[in-house]
Amino acid sequence: MDIKAVKACFIDLQGSICAALEALDGAGRFSAERFDYPGGGCGQPRVLQDGQKVEKAAVQYTHSVGEALPAAASERNPHLAGAGFQAAAISVIVHPRNPYAPTAHMNLRFFLVDGALPAWHFGGGFDLTPCYGFAEDCVAWHRAAKQAAGRHYAQMKRACDKYFHLRHRGEPRGIGGLFFDDWTEGGFTASLRLTRSIGQAFMPAYAQIFQKRSALPYGTRERDWQLLRRGRYAEFNLAIDRGTRYGLQSGRRIESVLASLPPLAQWRYNHAPSPGTPEAELLSFYLRPRDWLGEAPADDQAAPSG
Amino acid sequence: MDIKAVKACFIDLQGSICAALEALDGAGRFSAERFDYPGGGCGQPRVLQDGQKVEKAAVQYTHSVGEALPAAASERNPHLAGAGFQAAAISVIVHPRNPYAPTAHMNLRFFLVDGALPAWHFGGGFDLTPCYGFAEDCVAWHRAAKQAAGRHYAQMKRACDKYFHLRHRGEPRGIGGLFFDDWTEGGFTASLRLTRSIGQAFMPAYAQIFQKRSALPYGTRERDWQLLRRGRYAEFNLAIDRGTRYGLQSGRRIESVLASLPPLAQWRYNHAPSPGTPEAELLSFYLRPRDWLGEAPADDQAAPSG
Repeated sequence: MDIKAVKACFIDLQGSICAALEALDGAGRFSAERFDYPGGGCGQPRVLQDGQKVEKAAVQYTHSVGEALPAAASERNPHLAGAGFQAAAISVIVHPRNPYAPTAHMNLRFFLVDGALPAWHFGGGFDLTPCYGFAEDCVAWHRAAKQAAGRHYAQMKRACDKYFHLRHRGEPRGIGGLFFDDWTEGGFTASLRLTRSIGQAFMPAYAQIFQKRSALPYGTRERDWQLLRRGRYAEFNLAIDRGTRYGLQSGRRIESVLASLPPLAQWRYNHAPSPGTPEAELLSFYLRPRDWLGEAPADDQAAPSG
Repeated sequence: MDIKAVKACFIDLQGSICAALEALDGAGRFSAERFDYPGGGCGQPRVLQDGQKVEKAAVQYTHSVGEALPAAASERNPHLAGAGFQAAAISVIVHPRNPYAPTAHMNLRFFLVDGALPAWHFGGGFDLTPCYGFAEDCVAWHRAAKQAAGRHYAQMKRACDKYFHLRHRGEPRGIGGLFFDDWTEGGFTASLRLTRSIGQAFMPAYAQIFQKRSALPYGTRERDWQLLRRGRYAEFNLAIDRGTRYGLQSGRRIESVLASLPPLAQWRYNHAPSPGTPEAELLSFYLRPRDWLGEAPADDQAAPSG
């Protein structure tokens, strides 16, 4: 168990993801900041704003050393709350300019908790939030997810559908992907390998979709719909997301915690897209937990999670 | 104790506030909907969108009959959670188009809880959230608050400063006003009289400020700043506000619960206004809990709340 290996993995990923996004954008550049925390650890947020194709992207690495683990840090191990801990994490959010290009999110995290026995776990995943549905993108995204997660795909896909859900709307955030938490399966080396594999799969899968959809022409109608969908994204992040709650609870630097928020978002009372439009189809077809790879058994939803 | 009198008071207020806002706007009209709830009670949201001067306003009346009081409904009486209850409420939010005209919020509520003894309380208040500070507006607003709340002003003003605070930013939401909760002082008749007095003071005080500031010319710089400040408003409502949390917990109609969200809002990473600008002055001078009427004793902040 070596937190150095985890940190190196996350820092590598940060560098390669920023380079890939700059290449995709063709003009914008990521900022590079570093904040050393008094009690140990550091934050390295990198943000690209007002790019050519990327309206906002935040790719953040943090290493925290804390005296008391916040309750939001471990869902399945509430007894660890309050213990001394170290955490390393990378989080990625991309808000493209083109409404046909989906918003993407990736997060990987590692917790090491002090105690009678050192306890550790990995968590993270990635998910995709389109404003307009394209079946081939959903299939490609989930194929990449399956390739990265291997035999854990079905479990992690279900967990993703469950987590990225706006309960108050009865609406999924997007078309899902992978989500895992409190992960120790196969021991440290295997868990790190799996986490890295998921981290490395994210950008190639997203880049292909981003590039294809960023080339489509769009107008004020599509932009308007995108801003409404970004309103949903802000709702999820501010009212539901455990990562954001953890950030607010732990008193972390607020600009980093909220860097995931959309650059521009709107809310319109009683808005519903007209039936038969691509906007309505997003809601009625794409935003339903769905077996994109056509391989689930008939009783998939009822299958045990393991 | 007569919930009918409370309901009549809130419905009257809804009508007069909508009429006043339509007159101020000069073009927009409020929608009128009514939802009857299966278990009793009803919701009457009224929303004006895309007006001439009012970008969005929501003036909502609700009467709820519930089997189990949500925890968020009573801060000081957690033992009431789970009891059968009735609630009547009016909430008002106005997002003006002109960045010089402040956002305003008013809420009045009455809870009647079943039990060995019927328990009831009032709550509510109003507060003002400018994007640009005008000392005379702050003074006028707090004068109206004082006239409405009488000898309770100092207590309610402190409670308002305390409640409308973005902890994660270390920043007040606005310049405050009145806030009260679990209110039974002097019995039902006196409490209803006070609540009505606060409700009736809101619109005349706001109308004067709204009208004056909506006449000022503005450009893209002011609009940009307004949208950033509205981002803060969305943060407060989604991540902090107890009323919104109550709405999300109680499974109320989501479009009503979130009707307070700004029509358009933005977030920009690491944004800070240049020193010496009116935008910087909002943060450094106006968004500080302040004795706008110049009457507080030196130890006001330490004075007992009652």
